[in-house]
Amino acid sequence: MANSKFEYVRHFEQTTTTYLLPNTYIIIRIDGRSFHRFSTLQSFQKPNDPRALSLMNAAAVSVFHDLGGEVVSIAYGVSDEFSFVLRKECNLFDRREAKLVSTVVSIFTAYYVSLWPTYFPSQPLTKPLPTFDGRAVCYPTIENVRDYLSWRQADCHINNLYNTTFWALIQQGGMTPQEAEKELMGTLAKDKNEILWSRFGVNYNNEGEMFRKGSVVYRNYGAVPESSADDTPSDEKEIEQKEEKEEINPTTPPAETQKGKSRSQQKREAKKLAKAEVVIEHVDIIKEAFWEKRPWILHWTLGRQNEYAGTEQ
Amino acid sequence: MANSKFEYVRHFEQTTTTYLLPNTYIIIRIDGRSFHRFSTLQSFQKPNDPRALSLMNAAAVSVFHDLGGEVVSIAYGVSDEFSFVLRKECNLFDRREAKLVSTVVSIFTAYYVSLWPTYFPSQPLTKPLPTFDGRAVCYPTIENVRDYLSWRQADCHINNLYNTTFWALIQQGGMTPQEAEKELMGTLAKDKNEILWSRFGVNYNNEGEMFRKGSVVYRNYGAVPESSADDTPSDEKEIEQKEEKEEINPTTPPAETQKGKSRSQQKREAKKLAKAEVVIEHVDIIKEAFWEKRPWILHWTLGRQNEYAGTEQ
Amino acid sequence: MANSKFEYVRHFEQTTTTYLLPNTYIIIRIDGRSFHRFSTLQSFQKPNDPRALSLMNAAAVSVFHDLGGEVVSIAYGVSDEFSFVLRKECNLFDRREAKLVSTVVSIFTAYYVSLWPTYFPSQPLTKPLPTFDGRAVCYPTIENVRDYLSWRQADCHINNLYNTTFWALIQQGGMTPQEAEKELMGTLAKDKNEILWSRFGVNYNNEGEMFRKGSVVYRNYGAVPESSADDTPSDEKEIEQKEEKEEINPTTPPAETQKGKSRSQQKREAKKLAKAEVVIEHVDIIKEAFWEKRPWILHWTLGRQNEYAGTEQ
Amino acid sequence: MANSKFEYVRHFEQTTTTYLLPNTYIIIRIDGRSFHRFSTLQSFQKPNDPRALSLMNAAAVSVFHDLGGEVVSIAYGVSDEFSFVLRKECNLFDRREAKLVSTVVSIFTAYYVSLWPTYFPSQPLTKPLPTFDGRAVCYPTIENVRDYLSWRQADCHINNLYNTTFWALIQQGGMTPQEAEKELMGTLAKDKNEILWSRFGVNYNNEGEMFRKGSVVYRNYGAVPESSADDTPSDEKEIEQKEEKEEINPTTPPAETQKGKSRSQQKREAKKLAKAEVVIEHVDIIKEAFWEKRPWILHWTLGRQNEYAGTEQ
Repeated sequence: MANSKFEYVRHFEQTTTTYLLPNTYIIIRIDGRSFHRFSTLQSFQKPNDPRALSLMNAAAVSVFHDLGGEVVSIAYGVSDEFSFVLRKECNLFDRREAKLVSTVVSIFTAYYVSLWPTYFPSQPLTKPLPTFDGRAVCYPTIENVRDYLSWRQADCHINNLYNTTFWALIQQGGMTPQEAEKELMGTLAKDKNEILWSRFGVNYNNEGEMFRKGSVVYRNYGAVPESSADDTPSDEKEIEQKEEKEEINPTTPPAETQKGKSRSQQKREAKKLAKAEVVIEHVDIIKEAFWEKRPWILHWTLGRQNEYAGTEQ
Repeated sequence: MANSKFEYVRHFEQTTTTYLLPNTYIIIRIDGRSFHRFSTLQSFQKPNDPRALSLMNAAAVSVFHDLGGEVVSIAYGVSDEFSFVLRKECNLFDRREAKLVSTVVSIFTAYYVSLWPTYFPSQPLTKPLPTFDGRAVCYPTIENVRDYLSWRQADCHINNLYNTTFWALIQQGGMTPQEAEKELMGTLAKDKNEILWSRFGVNYNNEGEMFRKGSVVYRNYGAVPESSADDTPSDEKEIEQKEEKEEINPTTPPAETQKGKSRSQQKREAKKLAKAEVVIEHVDIIKEAFWEKRPWILHWTLGRQNEYAGTEQ
Repeated sequence: MANSKFEYVRHFEQTTTTYLLPNTYIIIRIDGRSFHRFSTLQSFQKPNDPRALSLMNAAAVSVFHDLGGEVVSIAYGVSDEFSFVLRKECNLFDRREAKLVSTVVSIFTAYYVSLWPTYFPSQPLTKPLPTFDGRAVCYPTIENVRDYLSWRQADCHINNLYNTTFWALIQQGGMTPQEAEKELMGTLAKDKNEILWSRFGVNYNNEGEMFRKGSVVYRNYGAVPESSADDTPSDEKEIEQKEEKEEINPTTPPAETQKGKSRSQQKREAKKLAKAEVVIEHVDIIKEAFWEKRPWILHWTLGRQNEYAGTEQ
Repeated sequence: MANSKFEYVRHFEQTTTTYLLPNTYIIIRIDGRSFHRFSTLQSFQKPNDPRALSLMNAAAVSVFHDLGGEVVSIAYGVSDEFSFVLRKECNLFDRREAKLVSTVVSIFTAYYVSLWPTYFPSQPLTKPLPTFDGRAVCYPTIENVRDYLSWRQADCHINNLYNTTFWALIQQGGMTPQEAEKELMGTLAKDKNEILWSRFGVNYNNEGEMFRKGSVVYRNYGAVPESSADDTPSDEKEIEQKEEKEEINPTTPPAETQKGKSRSQQKREAKKLAKAEVVIEHVDIIKEAFWEKRPWILHWTLGRQNEYAGTEQ
């Protein structure tokens, strides 16, 4: 066939085809490209634009739906980034890195562009269009995944406290951006809280939770009743107080796993979970409470048995 | 800082960060995800829908514009796939694979979704939205890149001849898809040409060039005058005749390079090229003629000097 | 400096520098290159040459000593291959794959060549010298590592039973290699046992344990007293009986970990372990018993804290 | 079969199996592990021990012989490192990185240990034995390969001039190592030459060529007669003079290729080359002359046609 003399070029693909290590959690993080510029062009409100964040969340929910029930177990978004945690037993595209990353980025982009008019009805998209890049990283244990998500949420808090104070100094304090930056140089969290309160009468803890905590997206299996202890308003205070101590996570009993459950019970649960509603919450995911009450997110092995988990010994 | 106890997780990124070999051509190919289903849902015309192909081409042109003047040197599209050839000296994102692939896929997706109403004005997009995956492959030489593009174009010809005959048997011949498939089993190109001509009065060579040749996208520097020899109607015939001989490429003199040009002349040309219009053509890129007349596409070193090309010896 | 115009070539190294995923077990397996030919040239006894296996074991022990106390936790050897399991917290060479693999292979080779006269005193090495290749694979969990080692030991049993019968047919039965191969085609384990017993009076279970079980190398911390239950002579029988049932590993209580031990106690233990004698045993490592009694091999976190293990939650 | 429940672990190998890009030169560089310590333990002469360097060279020659006639095209050694350039068309082990690197390291180690008594007859090897690590890097063009080798040879010159002066200050000048180091801080090449000449009567250009130029190993096809212009004693002077100018490589006409030769002539030449004697020389490989006279090293395509080179267009 005429084509066969050229087909040798397919061989070169082998050198860039990467398979992600089985039996590990894959986290795909997407980031807005040049969103600083994009948010200026589109006149996003500062420091946070709830329409823009809600659009990010809606695009993230679409990734859950498009990939199907058992692929993504939880996602966390803040500002123009979103991290998707894929189940340890995920075998989509044989775990080929480029396919996984590009697919998640493409779905997210398609829905972001498509849903734009819903969130910015009076403001049509103009060139350059909003786009995202992505990357994948593997984490072998639940502890590593929890620490990854804690890293992003602690970052959310640190950045949002900074931005809230920075923009208060400008919008209410009449400073230039350069003056505000200089004013904040070297300040600790408690200094920023103090500036907000004493100069502008703002209690940071009353700021919107979507801004302070970011957005947590997951399927709400709902097996475990919620207590009100989950999301106390003093969370950020706690993070701040521990800035020097470096000891955020209290050790609590491990979340309920599926050990002892029969295979058919697991299958029933998997089916139910795959159909469970995808919810968006703005809650603390650093502390134990969130995970204790939602063991299906990281502690359950669902759907297709993890064929690479190894013999239970 | 509170965050530092979690920041160790960043270290894991190192294990999936791939840098593509410097001084090689990077080809990023994107493919429509489940486009067979998507094209049915959206009632694409068979075997080819010119609106859908034109939308693909418009999205590809947007990739050229969004990435800037000197990144992509040529792109080739057929059906629901598009291949983008990045210049050998491209250093975008330090040549990190995941960033490059996800960015190209995201731009393509954003414009495909955004431009949809232009090409399908009476047909709003519905879920699931059109999405794409991508991959990157390196090729060290011009010969390898030429052969890659020849592979895709020969594939275009083979598939399009098949599809044209297949749908003629169904649409005009009244066959079921199964009957048409059976009819074509084991046929050579000349048999399909014969079926088209004798049963349906169709001369395949009169079919649209976008269908037969695919779409070639590049910046039209225009330095070299076009001759009419470029794109003779007998190209497919030639491919077919050589199906057994395996000798498609005639050896012709090499394309004009920039050797001997001064550095400042090269810079002027680079500047001019970066601003040149992006054009879409449906022409043969297997034979020499196309490349001879457009040496700037693969034979010129432009813009930023290739810092990894090595000492000219 | 004169060198600086060439130094850009260092940049290309980045594209082939692979870091192995932190917080996973690294298994480096080495294999003899063309050892079939080498063993013939050196007149190794068939089916097993105890001198050659002992030399392999001595070279493996040297890898433990050369790399230092806390790098390798266990090694398993059979025929001309040896697998080295590196501790999960190993950070040698920043976990760069090429450095790790090439170093283990180089140490193994150096000692194999150097110790040759000790095991083959009357037989000087001749060209081509014995050489080895190597590869590294990551495993995220203890279950995966246990299954890897079980895979190698089950392979050892299967191959050794075959080889023992094959060479009995030749050496005692007077068959040609081709006749022996044909005779064994399609036979199960019990058939081979029967051939050995009925034709040659050989009880396979009385064959040397080094041949039947391979060689297990580890540091004998000796904290847990050995019982005699460890290594019953009926192990292979068991493997065979379960060939169809696919259920080799009985579920037993998990091995003792270091949870609840103080950091300073862990450090004391690490120090003691690093100095513990490296021993070679020929015992079952598929069943629980071996691991229950030697929890320090896989269940203890030793030496340098695993900086990538994550917050204990 | 009993083994099949464990065999899933093989799947994990896929994630660390790297194939090196076809149609590029592979350079495998090996480095002595802790050779500073090893050379002290073995009382190597300073600054250069000709016995140790000759042993390195002999081990390198063994790599040529062990891998067969058409794999390595040239090797360059200096101090305790050696770089092996594999032909662009090399397909050994399907270009799997770990296999290639570990095999070269293993061969080198085996011969280094085995040949030790030949070069150090009165000095038996003691533990720890000499070992090496290795890495592989791909280079797409002859220019890149030439620049890589120039980088190593320029490094050889710079280091050797330093070491020669450093040890003269100690051995003949009576300085301590600290004093010598201080003395040389900030000196240029011409200063070191001056120190050697004025204080110790040493003309650096009369030092041994193996020390000043390193060792070049290749198959001496011998098709092109040698001129005496090759290796003038003023080479280092030239490098030094150009330290600031950064313009070492004079542009000369390209080396003779095999273009225009018939396929059968190429095959004859390949056969002859594969059998050609492996020679060790201590000559300049930065300038054109060396390559002009030995076009078969980098400019010829030999042996098995390069199946990934692409269609000659």
